[in-house]
Amino acid sequence: MTIVAARRYRDGKVVEHDLLPCREKPGEGEFDWIGLVEPSGEELKLIQDDYGLHPLAVEDALTHRQDPKTEAYGSQLFVLARTAAMVEGEKITYGQTSIFLGERFIITVRQGSERAHLKLRAQLEATPERLAEGPDFVLHAVLDYIVDGYGPLLDQVEKDIGEIEDEAIGDFPDSARIRRIFRLRRTLRHFEGIAEAMEEVAGKLWEVEQPSIDPRARPYFRDVFDHAQRAARRTRWLNDTLGGILQVASLLEQKRTGAITRQLAAWAAILAVPTAIAGIYGMNFKFMPELGWRYGYFIILAVTALTCAGLFYRFKRIGWL
Amino acid sequence: MTIVAARRYRDGKVVEHDLLPCREKPGEGEFDWIGLVEPSGEELKLIQDDYGLHPLAVEDALTHRQDPKTEAYGSQLFVLARTAAMVEGEKITYGQTSIFLGERFIITVRQGSERAHLKLRAQLEATPERLAEGPDFVLHAVLDYIVDGYGPLLDQVEKDIGEIEDEAIGDFPDSARIRRIFRLRRTLRHFEGIAEAMEEVAGKLWEVEQPSIDPRARPYFRDVFDHAQRAARRTRWLNDTLGGILQVASLLEQKRTGAITRQLAAWAAILAVPTAIAGIYGMNFKFMPELGWRYGYFIILAVTALTCAGLFYRFKRIGWL
Amino acid sequence: MTIVAARRYRDGKVVEHDLLPCREKPGEGEFDWIGLVEPSGEELKLIQDDYGLHPLAVEDALTHRQDPKTEAYGSQLFVLARTAAMVEGEKITYGQTSIFLGERFIITVRQGSERAHLKLRAQLEATPERLAEGPDFVLHAVLDYIVDGYGPLLDQVEKDIGEIEDEAIGDFPDSARIRRIFRLRRTLRHFEGIAEAMEEVAGKLWEVEQPSIDPRARPYFRDVFDHAQRAARRTRWLNDTLGGILQVASLLEQKRTGAITRQLAAWAAILAVPTAIAGIYGMNFKFMPELGWRYGYFIILAVTALTCAGLFYRFKRIGWL
Amino acid sequence: MTIVAARRYRDGKVVEHDLLPCREKPGEGEFDWIGLVEPSGEELKLIQDDYGLHPLAVEDALTHRQDPKTEAYGSQLFVLARTAAMVEGEKITYGQTSIFLGERFIITVRQGSERAHLKLRAQLEATPERLAEGPDFVLHAVLDYIVDGYGPLLDQVEKDIGEIEDEAIGDFPDSARIRRIFRLRRTLRHFEGIAEAMEEVAGKLWEVEQPSIDPRARPYFRDVFDHAQRAARRTRWLNDTLGGILQVASLLEQKRTGAITRQLAAWAAILAVPTAIAGIYGMNFKFMPELGWRYGYFIILAVTALTCAGLFYRFKRIGWL
Amino acid sequence: MTIVAARRYRDGKVVEHDLLPCREKPGEGEFDWIGLVEPSGEELKLIQDDYGLHPLAVEDALTHRQDPKTEAYGSQLFVLARTAAMVEGEKITYGQTSIFLGERFIITVRQGSERAHLKLRAQLEATPERLAEGPDFVLHAVLDYIVDGYGPLLDQVEKDIGEIEDEAIGDFPDSARIRRIFRLRRTLRHFEGIAEAMEEVAGKLWEVEQPSIDPRARPYFRDVFDHAQRAARRTRWLNDTLGGILQVASLLEQKRTGAITRQLAAWAAILAVPTAIAGIYGMNFKFMPELGWRYGYFIILAVTALTCAGLFYRFKRIGWL
Ligand SMILES: [Mg+2]
Ligand SMILES: [Mg+2]
Ligand SMILES: [Mg+2]
Ligand SMILES: [Mg+2]
Ligand SMILES: [Mg+2]
Ligand SMILES: [Mg+2]
Ligand SMILES: [Mg+2]
Ligand SMILES: [Mg+2]
Ligand SMILES: [Mg+2]
Ligand SMILES: [Mg+2]
Ligand SMILES: [Mg+2]
Ligand SMILES: [Mg+2]
Ligand SMILES: [Mg+2]
Ligand SMILES: [Mg+2]
Ligand SMILES: [Mg+2]
Ligand SMILES: [Mg+2]
Ligand SMILES: [Mg+2]
Ligand SMILES: [Mg+2]
Ligand SMILES: [Mg+2]
Ligand SMILES: [Mg+2]
Ligand SMILES: [Mg+2]
Ligand SMILES: [Mg+2]
Ligand SMILES: [Mg+2]
Ligand SMILES: [Mg+2]
Ligand SMILES: [Mg+2]
Ligand SMILES: [Mg+2]
Ligand SMILES: [Mg+2]
Ligand SMILES: [Mg+2]
Ligand SMILES: [Mg+2]
Ligand SMILES: [Mg+2]
Ligand SMILES: [Mg+2]
Repeated sequence: MTIVAARRYRDGKVVEHDLLPCREKPGEGEFDWIGLVEPSGEELKLIQDDYGLHPLAVEDALTHRQDPKTEAYGSQLFVLARTAAMVEGEKITYGQTSIFLGERFIITVRQGSERAHLKLRAQLEATPERLAEGPDFVLHAVLDYIVDGYGPLLDQVEKDIGEIEDEAIGDFPDSARIRRIFRLRRTLRHFEGIAEAMEEVAGKLWEVEQPSIDPRARPYFRDVFDHAQRAARRTRWLNDTLGGILQVASLLEQKRTGAITRQLAAWAAILAVPTAIAGIYGMNFKFMPELGWRYGYFIILAVTALTCAGLFYRFKRIGWL
Repeated sequence: MTIVAARRYRDGKVVEHDLLPCREKPGEGEFDWIGLVEPSGEELKLIQDDYGLHPLAVEDALTHRQDPKTEAYGSQLFVLARTAAMVEGEKITYGQTSIFLGERFIITVRQGSERAHLKLRAQLEATPERLAEGPDFVLHAVLDYIVDGYGPLLDQVEKDIGEIEDEAIGDFPDSARIRRIFRLRRTLRHFEGIAEAMEEVAGKLWEVEQPSIDPRARPYFRDVFDHAQRAARRTRWLNDTLGGILQVASLLEQKRTGAITRQLAAWAAILAVPTAIAGIYGMNFKFMPELGWRYGYFIILAVTALTCAGLFYRFKRIGWL
Repeated sequence: MTIVAARRYRDGKVVEHDLLPCREKPGEGEFDWIGLVEPSGEELKLIQDDYGLHPLAVEDALTHRQDPKTEAYGSQLFVLARTAAMVEGEKITYGQTSIFLGERFIITVRQGSERAHLKLRAQLEATPERLAEGPDFVLHAVLDYIVDGYGPLLDQVEKDIGEIEDEAIGDFPDSARIRRIFRLRRTLRHFEGIAEAMEEVAGKLWEVEQPSIDPRARPYFRDVFDHAQRAARRTRWLNDTLGGILQVASLLEQKRTGAITRQLAAWAAILAVPTAIAGIYGMNFKFMPELGWRYGYFIILAVTALTCAGLFYRFKRIGWL
Repeated sequence: MTIVAARRYRDGKVVEHDLLPCREKPGEGEFDWIGLVEPSGEELKLIQDDYGLHPLAVEDALTHRQDPKTEAYGSQLFVLARTAAMVEGEKITYGQTSIFLGERFIITVRQGSERAHLKLRAQLEATPERLAEGPDFVLHAVLDYIVDGYGPLLDQVEKDIGEIEDEAIGDFPDSARIRRIFRLRRTLRHFEGIAEAMEEVAGKLWEVEQPSIDPRARPYFRDVFDHAQRAARRTRWLNDTLGGILQVASLLEQKRTGAITRQLAAWAAILAVPTAIAGIYGMNFKFMPELGWRYGYFIILAVTALTCAGLFYRFKRIGWL
Repeated sequence: MTIVAARRYRDGKVVEHDLLPCREKPGEGEFDWIGLVEPSGEELKLIQDDYGLHPLAVEDALTHRQDPKTEAYGSQLFVLARTAAMVEGEKITYGQTSIFLGERFIITVRQGSERAHLKLRAQLEATPERLAEGPDFVLHAVLDYIVDGYGPLLDQVEKDIGEIEDEAIGDFPDSARIRRIFRLRRTLRHFEGIAEAMEEVAGKLWEVEQPSIDPRARPYFRDVFDHAQRAARRTRWLNDTLGGILQVASLLEQKRTGAITRQLAAWAAILAVPTAIAGIYGMNFKFMPELGWRYGYFIILAVTALTCAGLFYRFKRIGWL
């Protein structure tokens, strides 16, 4: 376990820097904020005993790849959130932040999440009047930070989709692009589930009646809810757009194949003329009067050329060529 | 910040024209209506302090491209609405109007919205009996004005779709038209989200229990709700129609390609006859009795022509030609 | 304004035939029923003042092409219904009937609706015991009349779809039929919205707690609800059927084109044999021993015929011919 | 009217066999069960007066092809159920059973339903302790009987779909099979609506607070609900399976056509070689040195054969042949 | 009937090993846990009488292939769960576990379920402090065990889909693979229904107000709910992925066929040149001046070759070759 930080605050100011070996409970106007990264079961057990965490919540905090959720255990709240980041422009990697919230403490546990909370803690410590509001405002700050991370991710995806659209609609997408669209859709569909679950989490925090959440904190969770909802909506819309690109690309290819089929038919018809005529005058019958004519050859050449030109003109007119 | 207007009304009549440097609160039967355009954070801060606006609401009012929402902060209401206008017949541009509503004030903040409220204010000032109803009726007037703007936009889209339909169904749409349908669908799908969120906003105002909204004002918000709902429904229906056009165009092209494939097969069969016969009599065998016949050439020509005619008639009958 | 009829009823019997210039309110056991057709704003204003109608309801009654809705204004109810009729077997024309319902009056306003209420009024006047139940029973009669009009319309559509199905499934539908299916689907999708909104209107009347609706009248509105629901369900089902027809037609055409592609390939293979052989013996080499053979020509003809027959038999066996 | 049976029961035993001409009300611990088949309006009127049935319920019972519903009229309940049976393995025929339920009577009216209730009555009369529970248990028995009839129907459809699947996936389905799938889907989609409405009917009976339904009877209606829900779920799943079959069949045909297109292209390329070469040496130029070579013919034949073999091998390797 | 085990526990420890012939009720702090496998109706009847089980619940426990459900009968609960296991990597086999829960007993009945509860019982007996919590904690342990079995099943499916994706997207899937995808989708769609019903079952247990479920047990059912919900979500996502694979495979085949059609057209055009020219100079006219030219043959060969090369270059440039 890396204990990133374990501090006690009174009126928004740090009163103890290395909380963990010490054992007195936070008093009136005080609260503890402990930040952990990938603790082992034994390590978390110690803290569990000190703060009276529910075993099911601890189990969730120790497990990777859970879906976002929020749950009340007595007067405590447990929140599980998912961070998301785009890597190499195609894949989303997810982290997990579990939060235990009591009236006078907040414990954050990160699993695989690459965005640390140190900067966030520094920002909050720099505005003691906000930190003095208590651990529910810290919870808001952490969730706000996580959900705000969805925006740039979707901006990146939207930019990529803009490029894919420009390419794919001008020309039938090649196999590599089709595969890329497929992967992007699968990725987005998965992310949609995460964003919707985060929306639900924030929505519950906004409505929950719990001693550990002050009524004045509620509009702040509504704000997180709005951002998560917007992320879910954008995801659905981007997915729709990708679906539309595939549909349009398919229609354009159908159109293109149809046009070539018509061209092929037209040229086959035009070329059938010299083939048939030449075939006839290439026969070896003894008595074929035209073969003996002085200008037979030229007449036939002219007839062939004229027929072909006539057919060409006709196909041109009906738009097959 | 452009302060478009900042007036105090008593019994529906203007009692002060340049409210802002002055500081007494509106009295019984009075209310303030302040209209701002793209204020900076500092500028809005001043008004926030005077009227006790919630910081989250102020933040929303300062941010562009938020989704429509309504939120109660204590006895105040915050409404965020989106205006929409069609530009160049293909793209929708959105503006944003944020409204802070208290029992004795209303503050409207426009971001990127091109339709100013001056005309609306003039109309309301011309009917003091309506203005005397208070700021909730001004809120209704603003929302009504915004949602009424959706109608002509959809009329324009419906007209465009009518044209697209006439063209696309008579003939397989060319690439430019397919792209236009794609863009229109994407645009409509986005607008659907806005219209649905506006429907939700009006629905909440209709049902909300708030001191700043008089029960007598409720049916008016229900009316806005009806219009937003109708806009959302029309949008879905127009989108369905565009989807139907693509489906039908694809079927018509499938049919057309099928017909040409059959024609191609029929002509290939017919032309195979002279090719095969001419090939045979073009062989250089020494002993080919037919070649010596007096009327061999003419007989063969006739047989070929008759066979071709027979095939042609047969294909005609089964509808391939 | 055509005042179609304006009568006062006591115990189900007419007591005054030309109500409108007169001004006393209906007494105990009495009610007024006024029927208007496309009144102007001024004309409706007079009645509005007499009966205390809400301005928003009056505005709705004066506007065309609103979606069905029901709304309570104090002790009064406002109901907006849509009539529908099939014209020329392909298009649905809509009318609009707005109804103001008070405890002792009912006012019906028709816009563009072609089915007048005179016959309905005559039927009700012929059964005074029903009319004595009051204006809520008149409201039921009008809505029942309107929703009952949806049945024959859908019967007509179902019959048409039966025909389309017989034609389209036996043969790939031609362009005219595809367009007809497209228009019918668009029409049905629109009607679905109307029928669902009427379902909602009837559902609300069935559940509403209002002095102007007697509890004994509720099951009657449930009955209207059932019919509107059935109309909405049938519409969805008919639309599904049309979608299924298009899908099946597309599959049948795919199958047909696939079969012809196989046939084309088979004949191309068979005809390649004489073409290749004749080509070879049509070459002008000086030393080609076969050309001098006595029965060379006949042998070659036989070899060609046998090879072709063998190929034909083989393609027949694998089902390509 | 066929009065199938009209009996009075006391403590679960028959006390009167031909109830109808008699007129005393059933006493404490007694109830009447009357079974009718397709009565005329006049006939049902007599019973309506005796038992105080609501006119809207009577109207529904007399009308064919209504959707399933349940409705409370005062202390009475009206239930309309649909029976379903598969005929000729492809079509579902529906019957209708209307049930009037009072505290001391139950009246069942069948329209077009082929499964009579006589056997059911015999079974119930054979277990007087169940019949003694009263008319709500008879209602359960009738609904249970009807919904139990959905199971074998769906078993039959599932078996058919299994066959269709085996055929259709091994080979592209011929037109007759495609049409059969289309009809089956339409039939199932309709049945889905019926099963869902029956689910709703049973669900309401399970939850309804009515003197005519004993609390002890509720779990029994929950049981009917479970079976109706399972039927609706199975129907949706079977429909999904049929849709999947069509999709897979289409993909397999696309694949097959693609393979033949490649084969066609490969053979066209191979056969172009002898055609071109034979064409060249079939020209009649005076000075063509190769024509005079001693082994020219054999060399050319060999070159042609080798080129063709080379092409054949290459196409084989890339999987076109 | 195999009575797997029938034990009485006091304070979490076994006090009687072969409960069944004995007849005293469990006392304060005691409970019975009876485990049965595929009992006959008669056998279950005995236990039914001892513990007062509801006949409908007993009927469900005796019937195979029911959908998961939970139902309260007085103070008792009945839960029906479905176990699922993947066999031969393609098919899911289902078992059924029915659970009767009273305040002082739990009876589990397995039908076709292959995963016995003996190990589970041993684990629980090894931690008497958990077993002392009573039969609701045993219920949780059984459901947790069943739902935990869904995870590895979906892991297996996800791995398979990963393989299918790698194969299918690199190359158009052959018929066997398409059939496999079809079967997998059908299987998953069915499993989705089971997982959703299990989600509902766990959700109800989490919310139910019942003497047989201690409030402290609720979060444990919420945990089962989370896992069932996650299984349902994953199933939907995997199904979406399979659908995406089919769509992409179809697009790639469309693209491939389109490319070959273009190639075919290009080669047909190129080969038409020597065919036409050779045809012309293969005619037998007496007066064809070119035939007598000294270098006619070579000129013509060169013209033909150059034209073909020009065409080849042009088709290469527009991407048809
Ligand atoms: Mg999801
Ligand atoms: Mg969702
Ligand atoms: Mg959600
Ligand atoms: Mg949802
Ligand atoms: Mg959920
Ligand atoms: Mg939401
Ligand atoms: Mg929402
Ligand atoms: Mg959402
Ligand atoms: Mg939405
Ligand atoms: Mg949306
Ligand atoms: Mg909405
Ligand atoms: Mg809505
Ligand atoms: Mg609505
Ligand atoms: Mg809506
Ligand atoms: Mg609708
Ligand atoms: Mg509906
Ligand atoms: Mg609806
Ligand atoms: Mg409905
Ligand atoms: Mg309904
Ligand atoms: Mg409905
Ligand atoms: Mg339904
Ligand atoms: Mg339905
Ligand atoms: Mg339902
Ligand atoms: Mg249900
Ligand atoms: Mg359900
Ligand atoms: Mg259901
Ligand atoms: Mg389901
Ligand atoms: Mg679900
Ligand atoms: Mg569910
Ligand atoms: Mg869920
Ligand atoms: Mg769910």
